Amino acid sequence: MSGQRPIAITMGDPAGVGAEICLRALADESLAEAAPVVVVGNREILGRVAERVELAAPAGNDLRIIDVPMSDPAAVEPGRVRTECGAAALDAIELAVRGCLDGRFAGMATCPIHKVAIHQAGCKFPGHTEMIASICKTQRFAMMLYSPRIAVSFLTLHVALSTARRRLSIGRTVEVIELTATTLRRIHGREPRLVLLGFNPHAGEGGLFGDAERDVLIPALESAKASGIEIDGPLPPDTAFTPEALVRYDGHVCCYHDQGGIPFKMLSFADGVNLTMGLPIVRTSVDHGTAFDIAWTGKASAASLFAAVRLARLLSEERKN
Amino acid sequence: MSGQRPIAITMGDPAGVGAEICLRALADESLAEAAPVVVVGNREILGRVAERVELAAPAGNDLRIIDVPMSDPAAVEPGRVRTECGAAALDAIELAVRGCLDGRFAGMATCPIHKVAIHQAGCKFPGHTEMIASICKTQRFAMMLYSPRIAVSFLTLHVALSTARRRLSIGRTVEVIELTATTLRRIHGREPRLVLLGFNPHAGEGGLFGDAERDVLIPALESAKASGIEIDGPLPPDTAFTPEALVRYDGHVCCYHDQGGIPFKMLSFADGVNLTMGLPIVRTSVDHGTAFDIAWTGKASAASLFAAVRLARLLSEERKN
Repeated sequence: MSGQRPIAITMGDPAGVGAEICLRALADESLAEAAPVVVVGNREILGRVAERVELAAPAGNDLRIIDVPMSDPAAVEPGRVRTECGAAALDAIELAVRGCLDGRFAGMATCPIHKVAIHQAGCKFPGHTEMIASICKTQRFAMMLYSPRIAVSFLTLHVALSTARRRLSIGRTVEVIELTATTLRRIHGREPRLVLLGFNPHAGEGGLFGDAERDVLIPALESAKASGIEIDGPLPPDTAFTPEALVRYDGHVCCYHDQGGIPFKMLSFADGVNLTMGLPIVRTSVDHGTAFDIAWTGKASAASLFAAVRLARLLSEERKN
Repeated sequence: MSGQRPIAITMGDPAGVGAEICLRALADESLAEAAPVVVVGNREILGRVAERVELAAPAGNDLRIIDVPMSDPAAVEPGRVRTECGAAALDAIELAVRGCLDGRFAGMATCPIHKVAIHQAGCKFPGHTEMIASICKTQRFAMMLYSPRIAVSFLTLHVALSTARRRLSIGRTVEVIELTATTLRRIHGREPRLVLLGFNPHAGEGGLFGDAERDVLIPALESAKASGIEIDGPLPPDTAFTPEALVRYDGHVCCYHDQGGIPFKMLSFADGVNLTMGLPIVRTSVDHGTAFDIAWTGKASAASLFAAVRLARLLSEERKN
């Protein structure tokens, strides 16, 4: 594996579970075999957490750690929101994205940040995805949640559900379908089978319960099919995730947050990965939050981070070709 | 089991799968042991279907069949919409409801009707539930989907999703919570643990994505708790159906059709039951449609009907006490 460019892992908020799962990633031999990693985060925090959770502290000269300086890392406490923690998390993201853009890293996998902390630190973005897209100067991106059992992408996300209908557009729907097809083509190495879900109950039942299908989804579907994408729909949402449907489709394009989020979290267990499609770099993320309640206790599972690193590796390999 | 009042099964649309699954119910000894049944439907159709699918035709004097006359049953073809079929389906429902109301039947389980056929036959109701509630003169009712693995009830159902928010009210939310608690108390014989789902992503994230939680759901929840109901919420919808949450809660009160429908159909497989809460009679229903494509072919599964009969039996026993 020497000579391979590493996947950069950003440590996330120093007061959360990020440091612990980064230590587990550094210590895991089978992960190292799948993909060399570097951790972008504060070295002193990593050392303090290693001591707390009885994991091996990385050696002072471990080149797999890219130190993100903090003025007073000794003041950080687990589970406590601090502006300096938000700032350190943001610095790590910026560093990792730049490293991906200039080719030092094959891709990046991010650990969770804390929204209040990054906003206190002056971040104007709602989260990772928008910040990374902005650094990459990308407007055309979308989120996918991926596990080997289910992959869902989204037309709308963090908006009041009563406003989701008016945020749907033919152009954006075609865009997300295309991004989903491209991403799953890379993951599976073949043309994926997609399905677009209806927005309304029974996919509108022929216009009886709403117009999103007729006015937006069906025209977008026709356009995507015309460009050669294999996609069915709009499917009645409640029958789209039955065991048969999950076998039939590689990816589900969903209209709103919980339409895809509910089935994903039912089936993904600990190994779900959050993936930003459409970026010029490979970026995956764990599918959980900072978990302040169990931070620095040794209880955090690194399964989602390991899955995120492996998926970033897979996507970066395909990209090379 | 003699002396027990029977559960009435309505045959549904004669051109659908109803007749076949009714024949299977009449023939099944273990079902008969759990609950005596009568089938309310056209006797000649039952005979024709029995011949087609090679099931034993009920004897001409089988008292377990309550004949619903049709003027020309020989003209009925599987999978073909006919006004006369809609009318026969409506007659069977009316007969069964009256029989429940006057105490001849312990409860009823309905086979699927065809919406176009019942509307051609002059029915002004969107479906079974509203029609039965009207005959019973009940305004306070709601739907539950039940299986041993998951039970979901609904604040809104067959409406455009963009209008669901303005249909939510504190009064209706409290009503559905109470109906859900009463129903699950009967099924489990103990106080159930309920959860109310948020309407918006992340249950609104403190008002950031919508106001349904603050203005409707939280006040309703407080009121339900004050009346002694064990209920959590409003829960972020995407984490409400994880394996841990499914173990923790006996029932999920959902804000809209697909919020409950997606997880239910993922987990209920063939044995899901649709149940009307709040009626003065016991009424359950299969969780599938007329399946015109496989009608009269012998391919229909009777699992949902058997589950519906067993649940009706359970609810009527509890009601007796």
